[in-house]
Amino acid sequence: MRQRLRFPAAMAAAIALMAVSGASASAAPQLAGGVAQASLPPLYAQELDRARAFVGEMMNGGVTVPVPKDPGGGYTHEQHKRNYRAIYLAGQLYRVTGERRYADHVRDLLLAYAELYPTLGEHPARSNQHSGRLFWQVLNDAVWLVYAVQGYAEVRGTLSAAERERIDNRVFRRAANFLSVDSQETFDRIHNHATWATAGVGMTGYLLGDRDLVERALLGSARDGTSGFLRQTELLFSPDGYYAEGPYYQRYALMPFMVFAEAIERNEPQRRVFEHRDGILLKALRTTIQLTYGGYFFPFNDALKDKSLQTEELYHGVAIGYGVTRDPGLLSVARQQDRTILSEDGLLVARDLAAGMAEPFPFRSILLRDGPGGDRGAVAILREGEGPLHTALVAKNSSQGMGHGHFDKLSWQLYDNGHEIVRDYGAARFLNIEAKQGGRYLPENESWAKQTIAHNTLVVDGRSHFGGDAEAAEAVAPQQIYFSAAPGLQVSSARVEGAYPDVAITRTLILANIPGLERTAVLDLVSAESEASHTYDLPLHYLGQIVELGFPVERHLAVRPVLGEGSGYQHVWVDASGTPSADAAAALTWLLGGRFYTYRFATDGNVEAILGESGANDPEFNLRREPMVILRTQRPGGATFATLLESHGLYDGAEEQTIGSRSRVAGMRHLRQNGMDLVRLALQDGREVAIAVSHDPDPAARHRIETDGTTTEWHGFAAVIELSPARS
Amino acid sequence: MRQRLRFPAAMAAAIALMAVSGASASAAPQLAGGVAQASLPPLYAQELDRARAFVGEMMNGGVTVPVPKDPGGGYTHEQHKRNYRAIYLAGQLYRVTGERRYADHVRDLLLAYAELYPTLGEHPARSNQHSGRLFWQVLNDAVWLVYAVQGYAEVRGTLSAAERERIDNRVFRRAANFLSVDSQETFDRIHNHATWATAGVGMTGYLLGDRDLVERALLGSARDGTSGFLRQTELLFSPDGYYAEGPYYQRYALMPFMVFAEAIERNEPQRRVFEHRDGILLKALRTTIQLTYGGYFFPFNDALKDKSLQTEELYHGVAIGYGVTRDPGLLSVARQQDRTILSEDGLLVARDLAAGMAEPFPFRSILLRDGPGGDRGAVAILREGEGPLHTALVAKNSSQGMGHGHFDKLSWQLYDNGHEIVRDYGAARFLNIEAKQGGRYLPENESWAKQTIAHNTLVVDGRSHFGGDAEAAEAVAPQQIYFSAAPGLQVSSARVEGAYPDVAITRTLILANIPGLERTAVLDLVSAESEASHTYDLPLHYLGQIVELGFPVERHLAVRPVLGEGSGYQHVWVDASGTPSADAAAALTWLLGGRFYTYRFATDGNVEAILGESGANDPEFNLRREPMVILRTQRPGGATFATLLESHGLYDGAEEQTIGSRSRVAGMRHLRQNGMDLVRLALQDGREVAIAVSHDPDPAARHRIETDGTTTEWHGFAAVIELSPARS
Repeated sequence: MRQRLRFPAAMAAAIALMAVSGASASAAPQLAGGVAQASLPPLYAQELDRARAFVGEMMNGGVTVPVPKDPGGGYTHEQHKRNYRAIYLAGQLYRVTGERRYADHVRDLLLAYAELYPTLGEHPARSNQHSGRLFWQVLNDAVWLVYAVQGYAEVRGTLSAAERERIDNRVFRRAANFLSVDSQETFDRIHNHATWATAGVGMTGYLLGDRDLVERALLGSARDGTSGFLRQTELLFSPDGYYAEGPYYQRYALMPFMVFAEAIERNEPQRRVFEHRDGILLKALRTTIQLTYGGYFFPFNDALKDKSLQTEELYHGVAIGYGVTRDPGLLSVARQQDRTILSEDGLLVARDLAAGMAEPFPFRSILLRDGPGGDRGAVAILREGEGPLHTALVAKNSSQGMGHGHFDKLSWQLYDNGHEIVRDYGAARFLNIEAKQGGRYLPENESWAKQTIAHNTLVVDGRSHFGGDAEAAEAVAPQQIYFSAAPGLQVSSARVEGAYPDVAITRTLILANIPGLERTAVLDLVSAESEASHTYDLPLHYLGQIVELGFPVERHLAVRPVLGEGSGYQHVWVDASGTPSADAAAALTWLLGGRFYTYRFATDGNVEAILGESGANDPEFNLRREPMVILRTQRPGGATFATLLESHGLYDGAEEQTIGSRSRVAGMRHLRQNGMDLVRLALQDGREVAIAVSHDPDPAARHRIETDGTTTEWHGFAAVIELSPARS
Repeated sequence: MRQRLRFPAAMAAAIALMAVSGASASAAPQLAGGVAQASLPPLYAQELDRARAFVGEMMNGGVTVPVPKDPGGGYTHEQHKRNYRAIYLAGQLYRVTGERRYADHVRDLLLAYAELYPTLGEHPARSNQHSGRLFWQVLNDAVWLVYAVQGYAEVRGTLSAAERERIDNRVFRRAANFLSVDSQETFDRIHNHATWATAGVGMTGYLLGDRDLVERALLGSARDGTSGFLRQTELLFSPDGYYAEGPYYQRYALMPFMVFAEAIERNEPQRRVFEHRDGILLKALRTTIQLTYGGYFFPFNDALKDKSLQTEELYHGVAIGYGVTRDPGLLSVARQQDRTILSEDGLLVARDLAAGMAEPFPFRSILLRDGPGGDRGAVAILREGEGPLHTALVAKNSSQGMGHGHFDKLSWQLYDNGHEIVRDYGAARFLNIEAKQGGRYLPENESWAKQTIAHNTLVVDGRSHFGGDAEAAEAVAPQQIYFSAAPGLQVSSARVEGAYPDVAITRTLILANIPGLERTAVLDLVSAESEASHTYDLPLHYLGQIVELGFPVERHLAVRPVLGEGSGYQHVWVDASGTPSADAAAALTWLLGGRFYTYRFATDGNVEAILGESGANDPEFNLRREPMVILRTQRPGGATFATLLESHGLYDGAEEQTIGSRSRVAGMRHLRQNGMDLVRLALQDGREVAIAVSHDPDPAARHRIETDGTTTEWHGFAAVIELSPARS
């Protein structure tokens, strides 16, 4: 028995099992029986120390269960958060150490809640109709229950019958009732808030032996499976385990799924919940991890960029996932986290990690379809190389992702050498910092972070996709046209119609090894089809110091104009702009993290490059100031941008060594013919290379383009062709 | 015998000693005798691998000794640099491994130089009168000799008499002659360039058994000790081992001092060179290390900010220093470097490190007097706490430091929590990046980086100290008035006269534990004495995101003015400015590295705060864009600024935890009375605290200030006094 949450056995019986059950006997309870903590594996011992420190501090502070008053970040809010952590951890500590004081503290806290809870009505700081009892939002009440019921489960058998009854009835039954009956609307949604609610209610059902609560949680209020936890596992994740809101919220959503599933598995193994829908929960866990670079989640949509795998939700997710799968790749994630949980799964993780059983997590190129049916676009991840310095390209061809979605269809990001190279701004928010509007999303989240110009994708006529209307955006999803993870020539191609009334956009991103270039490079083809005349802006948001600019620009040295008046343009300072001639070196080189990056675009002489920086019209200093280059062209009947991002050289200030600071490309031309694209690169060493794209997914089909008397032939969707060799 | 460079024995004899001498027998040569490399300590084995890889690559490339043509960074320049490294390392590899191919490669390279060297005249790319032969600057020729002679020493005994004579006469005697006779002017300077030259010449003298070369090197061309290496050790360092140009150049200067001194010690131990001038060379080594935070050198004056202890010069310095002293603190520096050298000193370092003999290097609060007599000002370092997150305050009260000096008398910096908080811009230069003016100092180094406004010190009437005249600046040095490293109340006070014709500046920086504040705080008192009316600007250069501003400002949202027209002011954009009333919260809070910093100033209502950013009028994108706040007041007859920098709270985006984001100070007042300063802080918790400064160094003297009916009494230079307790 790895968890006290067991249905339908009464807790007394469950507790009696504690000393004799297999896994327990070989694991933590030994500590209670006299085994020194020193014999525990280091990761687990460290977690135990951390929990002892926190709970010890809480116990020293005495039982403090205040009448709810404050919104998020305020005193009563934070105190109730601390309390549920204390209940959860003290319960775990009691199980592991057998020290009665921990059980007593859980009891005392819950008896205080038994006094308070029945007196509560609507929260005084509620800001919408979904008010909680202990917290301003019902979501927080659900989180409270998920933690508290787990702590209670560990100590319930130590209580007197009167105490047990009092806590059962005045706290847990009421809380479960509040979440599932009083808040039925939230409870029956297909939404991550409902996942927390069903998890709390269902686990309470298991603990109290209340079959009704369990069924409501699993199958929804109507008990017919049209809502409830199981339905959520079917509708909230795509078949590839992708969660529509994006990685930041996927991380958050994952925890109640994993925690409740673990409880279901323990109590009703016959449900085979981890096998449900082709193992969707474990898939979602692995997908969550795939959505990272250097441990940090890809920060698209509303996301705090400092969110990494080192987060409570993933400590639970990885430990539970390992308990189910024994996948050694998860151990290396736990090692990177340097954290686990105090459950027996956590102990297993720590033991096997200490035993050297970890293997690298298999980060790889992967297409993650979006939508419950997998037909709402996709996120494409292309990786080249391995380890912390590998290259990763992320193409965001997914659906809007609800209220936290950004207007950035077909946007992309690039990571290389341990850094974010082509970056996403994330959300404009300073979480929990009172002076920054109480830590909520800032006005600039709407006016800048969500707008299209703040992303690496096409803006037409200076307005955001879907006119910045979230509902309109939700109605349309891009289409992933092609995906290939073939080594040395990886491709993602996608198309969106409807972002603008009369413009369809196709983007093909190619991560390729190009002969003569030092490292893998990115070719980006963005094609806008339209019958009308438009202004097209293609921004690239980078980080780093400009080292070289290949063409003349007008510099705004003492007065920087602002780029425009709305749709985020009001936040962009213009540093410089220039329109290189067709034969100029239309390239910008910057330096970041000891490596040079050259961004180059093909031009017919009618593409303006605008160098800008975010931060204009920001009265409260809410924005980060970061550079961008915007390619702009105005033309009738569509436009295509062809750009190359080349990574090269080395700058080592410590060793005073600089190598390869200049691009190896001398010229770049783009030709579009019969719906096919041909990009020709002339390298500094005399070599000529073409990248040809047919846009035809048939790998056997042959294609040809004739240009300047040269015939280029290839087969399949795309190819890299060496046209002429380097000068000897 | 720890080094082949031995005088007056002939090399043949020295080589014969190799197999039998004590240290050698117990160390590296064993490898040649059959001991597996695996038995070497890890740091040394790793260094050996690195050398094998480099030399192997060079050997594969064949002997390439091109006719000198290019300036720094160009092909012939870089090739001759690679060659001297190959000669040096192949010599070391031969000694350690006994593999003949390494000796042969040194021979082949040097025979090629024997062909080339006698044909050389002035370097074609020379840019001043001090042209080299192999390189555009004579300095580089000296560096070449220092490395090459050490490599040659290891293999000279393996050569035929004809080869030896050819290389002796056509390379080393000529190079030594060029440096000491043809370039006598440089050779006899008291300057770091001359240190390299004397080191190369002297070591050549030891190797060739040429007493004349040795004496010239040690005592100067006139052999009277008015110049030469020994005199340099007396005049280039202060009595505390501080080198006037500052840490960046101190690092560079250190290498020839240590390398040549080691050779002197081996060949003429009776000179006791490491005891010379009270052990100045070892003092200089330790001082160089003291001038760092987190391993990085304090970047004042012309300095690349990425320069750390992980640099060739310090690998030599630490290894040689350890060989002489066996100071276990140096071992922890070597551990941080994760590098050493292949000499027997390096082996010793690696062995003792592997044996666990390292102890923490004793970083501490220290006053480093400047100037050969110790009377040219000082650098004061105040440290609080230990380890990588400790707090360090640096007060730059030193002399100008020659041509690489900045106009920043009495400037300061602060490090905390592993970050540079109050920062120094360093130099405007991208070393060796061709597109950035060939990697040389950029125009913005003069127009911005050297100017006073780019530093954390007082600017009068918008002009830099000494009118930006380096010669005038060199003539004047500040005076260190007081220094105390008393725990909890550390003080540096200094004064400069002459930076402006009619303004004397006194600055007192106090790193204090103030009751009621979370962490150690900095109180800064800057006092300008003048009879005339002036505008005073006090800039603070920080890094981070503005979180809160305590007073209303005018924001420049869509057009940012430029601060001024010269002296660096032309490079500052103005984001906002405001003049808080006397009772306002005159404070700015920013967030950096998960910690909050509040900068607060006392005001009578006549201090304007200007929020700015560097980067205006920067046509080539040569500047970093970094924020600053400038306090400005215009008044007759002097002015005093009193500011407090408070570090507080915690922001952990990963844990979604924010604590203490707001300052604990509610108000701050400053009073100046009879030349004494009193700063009164009213804290949020009701407490009142005073920091009183008498400016009287006598620790026994008692002082009092009467204000608002309150009498504050203390003794000594400064005191922190709790006036009234917190509200209960």
